[in-house]
Amino acid sequence: MYLDLDGQGARYAQLIRALKGAILDGRIAAGARLPASRSLARELDLSRNTVLAAYEQLQAEGFLLGRVGSGSFVANVGSAAPPRRASNVLIAPLSAFARRALTHTDGRRIPGRQHLDLRYNLQYGLPLVNPLLASVWRREVSRAAEHAEFDYPDAQGLPALREQICDYLSRRRGVPTAAEDVLIVSGTQQAFSLAARVLLEPGDAVVLEDPHYRGARQAFTTHGAHARGCRVDADGLVPAALPASARLAVVTPSHQFPTGALLPLARRVELLDWAAAQRAWLIEDDYDGEFRYGGRPLAALKSLDRDGRVIYIGSFSKALFPALRLGYMVLPAALRDAFVAAKWLEDRGNNSLEQAALAHLMSSGGFERHLRRAALALRARRAAMLNGLAKHAGDTVEVVDSNAGMHLTAWLTRANHGDCERLVAHARERGLGLYTVAPYCMKPPARPGLVLGYASLPPADIEAAMKLFGKCLQEIGLR
Amino acid sequence: MYLDLDGQGARYAQLIRALKGAILDGRIAAGARLPASRSLARELDLSRNTVLAAYEQLQAEGFLLGRVGSGSFVANVGSAAPPRRASNVLIAPLSAFARRALTHTDGRRIPGRQHLDLRYNLQYGLPLVNPLLASVWRREVSRAAEHAEFDYPDAQGLPALREQICDYLSRRRGVPTAAEDVLIVSGTQQAFSLAARVLLEPGDAVVLEDPHYRGARQAFTTHGAHARGCRVDADGLVPAALPASARLAVVTPSHQFPTGALLPLARRVELLDWAAAQRAWLIEDDYDGEFRYGGRPLAALKSLDRDGRVIYIGSFSKALFPALRLGYMVLPAALRDAFVAAKWLEDRGNNSLEQAALAHLMSSGGFERHLRRAALALRARRAAMLNGLAKHAGDTVEVVDSNAGMHLTAWLTRANHGDCERLVAHARERGLGLYTVAPYCMKPPARPGLVLGYASLPPADIEAAMKLFGKCLQEIGLR
Repeated sequence: MYLDLDGQGARYAQLIRALKGAILDGRIAAGARLPASRSLARELDLSRNTVLAAYEQLQAEGFLLGRVGSGSFVANVGSAAPPRRASNVLIAPLSAFARRALTHTDGRRIPGRQHLDLRYNLQYGLPLVNPLLASVWRREVSRAAEHAEFDYPDAQGLPALREQICDYLSRRRGVPTAAEDVLIVSGTQQAFSLAARVLLEPGDAVVLEDPHYRGARQAFTTHGAHARGCRVDADGLVPAALPASARLAVVTPSHQFPTGALLPLARRVELLDWAAAQRAWLIEDDYDGEFRYGGRPLAALKSLDRDGRVIYIGSFSKALFPALRLGYMVLPAALRDAFVAAKWLEDRGNNSLEQAALAHLMSSGGFERHLRRAALALRARRAAMLNGLAKHAGDTVEVVDSNAGMHLTAWLTRANHGDCERLVAHARERGLGLYTVAPYCMKPPARPGLVLGYASLPPADIEAAMKLFGKCLQEIGLR
Repeated sequence: MYLDLDGQGARYAQLIRALKGAILDGRIAAGARLPASRSLARELDLSRNTVLAAYEQLQAEGFLLGRVGSGSFVANVGSAAPPRRASNVLIAPLSAFARRALTHTDGRRIPGRQHLDLRYNLQYGLPLVNPLLASVWRREVSRAAEHAEFDYPDAQGLPALREQICDYLSRRRGVPTAAEDVLIVSGTQQAFSLAARVLLEPGDAVVLEDPHYRGARQAFTTHGAHARGCRVDADGLVPAALPASARLAVVTPSHQFPTGALLPLARRVELLDWAAAQRAWLIEDDYDGEFRYGGRPLAALKSLDRDGRVIYIGSFSKALFPALRLGYMVLPAALRDAFVAAKWLEDRGNNSLEQAALAHLMSSGGFERHLRRAALALRARRAAMLNGLAKHAGDTVEVVDSNAGMHLTAWLTRANHGDCERLVAHARERGLGLYTVAPYCMKPPARPGLVLGYASLPPADIEAAMKLFGKCLQEIGLR
């Protein structure tokens, strides 16, 4: 009997797999007698106990019948599936959803952040590294673990956390809301994914600002919605450019992503009027509304929502850090039950521990202390970047300075898109991670631009990065 | 000027909201001059500073224009949305998905566990309360927080956790797999929800055992799939009763839910043959495969999967506790990228902290120590329930004793479905929580039955609960 042990894990388990395979393939026929344990052990260079244990297990599973004094016989296990090996060949088609999903992972096997070997990485979304936050968070988590809940959580989110979010939104974002209208979700991405399913049929139109956050487009188009772009200028979304019919628009009025524009009041009102005329929903993605460095923060669009059509999305990925995977939605009363049901059917709600830790961080004042410290740090990093750009890039870039957030957009004044790609490639070779505006756009933008994240690097590194940026501009002849 | 302050939060914020509302409603017209701060303060019994701060904010937001020396004028903010109040009236239709989702929350506003005031609650799924686990978990969480990751996690799941799951599955469930085939998800529920989207178009047929786990049916039917039941007998799913055409079947071969049957090998092979003939996928829901109290555990169905059509789902909700919201899928190579992309588009992956804590719990041996302790405790609770049923219910019930899991199914031998409902209602009045098999069924079962969870009560409580159960049977004349 030829048995091929696969060499993975315990010899006992290898032998079981090999025997099962041979029985299921029909290489050992039903009714056949297996070799005596002693002889098989000798043949395969195994201990006799290993063989006996494998026979015993196969007997327990019904592959072998033992007859006292006469050895082990192969049971009739019916016709087995053909001995194809598991492969990458699909045995049945994927859904249209799955085929669309695959187009969004850019051929990367495991989507997620690519860890590049760069001296200075200006990628947007890298978190502010903050040892004080790390120790505060450690304390909150340990504290929450002392009072751990073990049963299923509230699918809508921990009530104490929802209360804290209400308090925060009313004080800081001008959004008066009640805990029953807040839904805790696994980050902004899940908010988009749930909204796609709850609000849109495949084939429905969704309006996205152009440029926009890619994760939103991916969630909606994978669901099967048609994304329509709306032009953005220095004041953000241009209401006159809104398409004639759509079921939903996703907007970033506080800090247009990625251009940084702040949508003026008159445009906010026009946007609400458009939505009312269309019977459309609006999603306000307030992804970094916590960080504004000049003037008072404007109230959120949601604060103008008179008839319950604005869905407000907040995230702790920027205010705290992305590994937390926590965000929230403020839902109009008419949508609340449907979104909560969708969340419950998706994953039964978020895990309890970090919700409890976050609720206590907020109620103890630690969250707002962190926000104040983070804003100071971000302001210094932003200043270092603005100074560095002025000094080392001069008028080769035009910077959109919105006094907010964790990134700047810099438009290249003397370059075409090809130059910009060359700049990015050259900078990467020199250890500087630059990222263009292009992937955020549906239509190619009129001018090439860069999205420059400054949250993860201390000011000295940003200064050095800007110096290197200036050198790169010179080296490829743009300055 | 009549202004109605809503009494919520700071007076300053109340005044801002009231003024904005009046401006947007047109009650204060564009161009109108607002009262001097001093007189408005007197009128509304506010401090003058409060009024000044509100005017200043409204000016910053563009609602007011200040002219030096001549007061504050209302800006032209365009025509505002009509002054409807946010209500429960839908301003635009929900998707078909959302309408189906709402049918599954049973009219409860906030889905999730209902906390009933019961002396003994025999609800399935309540976790094993275990002070030792609580302290072990607290230690692991604090330890993981020491090495917290802040950036986006790996969307497929923490590699260290996936490695540990592979090791565990190969040793304990006979499933040899590689970390690259494992996807970490937010519990079994998300596995079903992702599978619905990746494998099925709305309208496709999915086979469910009848009876079955409701969460699976809800996920698939909300997606729009047609659920078809397959008969179950004392040996589990009856392969001859599988429908002629389906794209997917969801099965519980190790411990049929909720009847407790163990699917024999011959039926497993028939099931695989059926799937091969249909070009169908199989989902193996191994929800409590960790706990088997007699004989060796049978290897999972996945161990017989020769051509990559079985998707294996495991959960930590039973092995540890539901508040963790962590589970995993073992994916055939051909499906891996599509499922990882779907998870990435849904929520960018699970939070890092508890994945790291769990990975260390597993690698340190603590997880299997816990499983051994939990199995001992569950065995004692199960024995108490079996003894109590024999003593207090006698032949009024027929118990399916599958030597596994955290629940028993007890069929009522002398009762009809109406009697069973009366029994449940009567028991609830007496402080005993009983749950029927009916909600798990597509067709009403031939006999009424109860799903009796025993994980959350110590043996003495289970004894007392069974005594009360016997009394209830007598009181309503079933014994």
